[in-house]
Amino acid sequence: MADLEQALAEVAAEMAARGDRGEVASYIPQLGRVDAGKFGIAAATNDGRVLVAGDAGEAFSIQSISKVFTLTLALGEKGDALWKRVGREPSGNPFNSIVQLEHENGIPRNPFINAGAIVISDVLLAGHQPRETIGEILRFVQFLADDETITIDSAVAASERATGYRNFALANYMKSFGNLHHAPEMALGVYFHHCAIAMSCRQLALAGRFLANGGRQPSTGHSVISAERARRISALMLTCGHYDGSGDFAFRVGIPGKSGVGGGILAIVPGVASLAVWSPGLNANGNSKLGSIALEKLAKMMNWSVFAP
Amino acid sequence: MADLEQALAEVAAEMAARGDRGEVASYIPQLGRVDAGKFGIAAATNDGRVLVAGDAGEAFSIQSISKVFTLTLALGEKGDALWKRVGREPSGNPFNSIVQLEHENGIPRNPFINAGAIVISDVLLAGHQPRETIGEILRFVQFLADDETITIDSAVAASERATGYRNFALANYMKSFGNLHHAPEMALGVYFHHCAIAMSCRQLALAGRFLANGGRQPSTGHSVISAERARRISALMLTCGHYDGSGDFAFRVGIPGKSGVGGGILAIVPGVASLAVWSPGLNANGNSKLGSIALEKLAKMMNWSVFAP
Amino acid sequence: MADLEQALAEVAAEMAARGDRGEVASYIPQLGRVDAGKFGIAAATNDGRVLVAGDAGEAFSIQSISKVFTLTLALGEKGDALWKRVGREPSGNPFNSIVQLEHENGIPRNPFINAGAIVISDVLLAGHQPRETIGEILRFVQFLADDETITIDSAVAASERATGYRNFALANYMKSFGNLHHAPEMALGVYFHHCAIAMSCRQLALAGRFLANGGRQPSTGHSVISAERARRISALMLTCGHYDGSGDFAFRVGIPGKSGVGGGILAIVPGVASLAVWSPGLNANGNSKLGSIALEKLAKMMNWSVFAP
Amino acid sequence: MADLEQALAEVAAEMAARGDRGEVASYIPQLGRVDAGKFGIAAATNDGRVLVAGDAGEAFSIQSISKVFTLTLALGEKGDALWKRVGREPSGNPFNSIVQLEHENGIPRNPFINAGAIVISDVLLAGHQPRETIGEILRFVQFLADDETITIDSAVAASERATGYRNFALANYMKSFGNLHHAPEMALGVYFHHCAIAMSCRQLALAGRFLANGGRQPSTGHSVISAERARRISALMLTCGHYDGSGDFAFRVGIPGKSGVGGGILAIVPGVASLAVWSPGLNANGNSKLGSIALEKLAKMMNWSVFAP
Repeated sequence: MADLEQALAEVAAEMAARGDRGEVASYIPQLGRVDAGKFGIAAATNDGRVLVAGDAGEAFSIQSISKVFTLTLALGEKGDALWKRVGREPSGNPFNSIVQLEHENGIPRNPFINAGAIVISDVLLAGHQPRETIGEILRFVQFLADDETITIDSAVAASERATGYRNFALANYMKSFGNLHHAPEMALGVYFHHCAIAMSCRQLALAGRFLANGGRQPSTGHSVISAERARRISALMLTCGHYDGSGDFAFRVGIPGKSGVGGGILAIVPGVASLAVWSPGLNANGNSKLGSIALEKLAKMMNWSVFAP
Repeated sequence: MADLEQALAEVAAEMAARGDRGEVASYIPQLGRVDAGKFGIAAATNDGRVLVAGDAGEAFSIQSISKVFTLTLALGEKGDALWKRVGREPSGNPFNSIVQLEHENGIPRNPFINAGAIVISDVLLAGHQPRETIGEILRFVQFLADDETITIDSAVAASERATGYRNFALANYMKSFGNLHHAPEMALGVYFHHCAIAMSCRQLALAGRFLANGGRQPSTGHSVISAERARRISALMLTCGHYDGSGDFAFRVGIPGKSGVGGGILAIVPGVASLAVWSPGLNANGNSKLGSIALEKLAKMMNWSVFAP
Repeated sequence: MADLEQALAEVAAEMAARGDRGEVASYIPQLGRVDAGKFGIAAATNDGRVLVAGDAGEAFSIQSISKVFTLTLALGEKGDALWKRVGREPSGNPFNSIVQLEHENGIPRNPFINAGAIVISDVLLAGHQPRETIGEILRFVQFLADDETITIDSAVAASERATGYRNFALANYMKSFGNLHHAPEMALGVYFHHCAIAMSCRQLALAGRFLANGGRQPSTGHSVISAERARRISALMLTCGHYDGSGDFAFRVGIPGKSGVGGGILAIVPGVASLAVWSPGLNANGNSKLGSIALEKLAKMMNWSVFAP
Repeated sequence: MADLEQALAEVAAEMAARGDRGEVASYIPQLGRVDAGKFGIAAATNDGRVLVAGDAGEAFSIQSISKVFTLTLALGEKGDALWKRVGREPSGNPFNSIVQLEHENGIPRNPFINAGAIVISDVLLAGHQPRETIGEILRFVQFLADDETITIDSAVAASERATGYRNFALANYMKSFGNLHHAPEMALGVYFHHCAIAMSCRQLALAGRFLANGGRQPSTGHSVISAERARRISALMLTCGHYDGSGDFAFRVGIPGKSGVGGGILAIVPGVASLAVWSPGLNANGNSKLGSIALEKLAKMMNWSVFAP
């Protein structure tokens, strides 16, 4: 097995040099103007090291990666009752598909597709104003990363709201089935804001440590969630974390991961480390192109796979 | 962690006593008349032990579990070129759905849904008569289990052929897209026969050892497939092995598994053991009801999960 | 052939006596509290007679029947360019399905399903405020019926807006494909208001005369639209006027018709008469149950069918 | 209104001169080698005239037009009980779609899509050998056209059978739902043969007269079917006769018609004439491109439309 620090450096160097980097998301200007040449990678190990390479200190829009954190919060509040309102199955459809909702009575397939995450936002609203819920989510992420400088990019959130007709469609559609308890624009307000959290690879890797470490913060030993719940969230990341490319990611990389349209991926090596990678260009499934290639190479070099003996 | 032998016995005792056992598949008489009260479980560990409980010595129709073995063979013959003809994504649809094929030009989503396995049968036919291919599959399973007494139940195969209109539809449909290279009835001949392989839990657990052991037979050290391929097949089992209940199985049980409509499940604990369980009654997704509950309990008792630190 | 006045009376008497009257739409209270026992029918003949029976003078919510009038207006403004934004094919899906939009890039199948009518509302908004467009539609209907007392039930429009999540979903979804040129809530504002026009059978039959009379008002000879356009709107009514029950209506009744969820149907006997019927209870496809039976009986008695020699 | 004979000649001349003629079906060689430059048109009027222009005497494969005749026969044998096994609604899908069958339990949407016509063939098999049923259908068409020289092109039937995997898929799929009572290959044997009937425009126009004439042969006054049934079959032709282009044909041409992939269309002007047109090139929906344009022009010249006053 390779030395992790060296492996990160090697992967970062190789990725920086590659030509075909995928397409940067351009549906909002804030994402569209990000430099496609960026590449960062970070690892926060269970034994307390934080190793980085490339542009690992530069903040980017974590987008759907935030769904891991909102799911964690919602499970904490509702427990398994949550699963009445959202499923746990891969969707077999693109991230913003509405077809499945029509066939399955407004119950989204899993908490990581847009519709599912909007339900999670709705759950987190219970008894709160959107502003309070947004604050709670941000503070949770700051706590996980042990970094109070993490912020929400309100320009991104505003742009998402101004152009997010597809998400408005999903929310209204679920509301028509009774699967939102608040007004669609309230759930979407929370949703657009948590997707607009900006973090660097370093911060993101730190925030994911509890999933690699049986639910506990390695730095403090503090239990964030139970070990069983940490496993289960990891299982959902593996089966559903890359939209309609989840099977391929599990096949090639072999560890749980969650991607975002900003080009980030959070990945978990259970018992070993939390990883974050960022390359803004996306592949056909809307996942970071070089990000997933980098994780595949790193996992191979380090012999990391949840399926390895 | 519990003692494995004792854990198996406990689980078997608890399952034998349960009331609601699901519905036995009855689309062919040979499956329909199986005693719903049966329950067997077996574990073949990487350190060479074979532990059993309940009706673990009684042969049952392994049905779709056989798709793990045909996929292994087909990857050996075609390598990654295989993935041009079959995908690696969860289907988001029932095991025998034809809708996805219409939307995706006759390319099945993965090798474990019926359509995908029929393509695999077609691949294995290249240069062979169906009889030869069927013989090759059977010998491979016998070799893996180190047991030449394993046979194909030809009455089951004949019944499947006589009533398998849905599978004939799938095969003809893929043929219309050019994704079968032989006549549909030839590919189906192979498919119906490998699904009709009869094995006991003991035999099945033995046959799965190479997947738990990095591609090698633990008894002989003989390499069946590369370690990387063993991981990848395990990844496919986790994301696609239980049809439209795969996400739920990964969430609750946390290890790769492949179910069959005969009520069997083959499950893999990487580095530790290959497991086989059998209870004929099925849940709504067509997977063994008590079989998956038993594996969930066993995994919990033994602290087995690919997502555990 | 029967005498029309007598036939109307006979049909009205028979319908008034029937037991199973279908389910009254209850998604908004204003519709839900309508008396299921009501039945009205009216015919406005090309030779200038207006014949009525039952509750033909009582106003009801015309709902989707209004789509015939908005389509007529929109064709007048845009001509055949309209067909770039909405199709002319039966949908093969329920009236409020969103699946088809995902598969066909946000272009609704026809102007009579909800999504199609929302696009028509968007077309009519060009250069106008919603209030102006709503006024234009109302005046057009008043002009067609030669009756300035026709009004919009603003309580119905407000209820539709307050609960119309599915329509908000459709509008936002089409907006995400660029097939709405105004804000979704503006197009929906127009849509909800024209659906809330309240008319009696008598008024509705009068408003439909131009379609039975080659595009001209029989009373004045004034040309509303060309004869060709009148035929084409009638063709759309026949193929698409009853949602996923259009084929059945064409088969059983044999004349063009457009239904509304308020229980009304406008039907056209080309060259002979415009008909309106009202019975609030609906069948499984969301069309007036007794209304369509009444039209079937009347057409049989009068030997009316566009397919008759 | 124009003189019919002159109108036919004009239309034929114009069509013969046109450049873009669509794509000739090439899925079997017998269709693929037909000369795309052919164009024929014929009208058999209720007053006994038979008028032709262009290649109206040349036989072509009538293909799906034959479904009008098999539906007529099946309604004669089963009456309205037929509608339990096949619907009467436009499909909203291509002619050979299998998706709808999965969503609607193996009941095809209408008798004119492939799946529906295969069910009709199965109905006609009751108590017969395929050879007998095929003979019955052929004799019925010969009787309608008053021409015993009409034959089945057995090379076409054999090619269809050899390559018709999609139809085998449809038949097996419906069989899996119990909606075929005979073996799929038996129903398909009938289906492939009636689709292979070869007729000229002249013969086809003659065979359709009963539909234009209230169910009676104009030449003899012999009643083939009731006037009501003739109307209803015409209604189905209007709503479903051109697959997913039916709405457009009704909109543009305004009379009932049934197309075939051989490039023929049978159209009915109720009370006036039966029309047949043939041009082998197809449009995107699989209907004769120039055939439908020719009928649109002819209908306009003759002021024919079922929606005209």
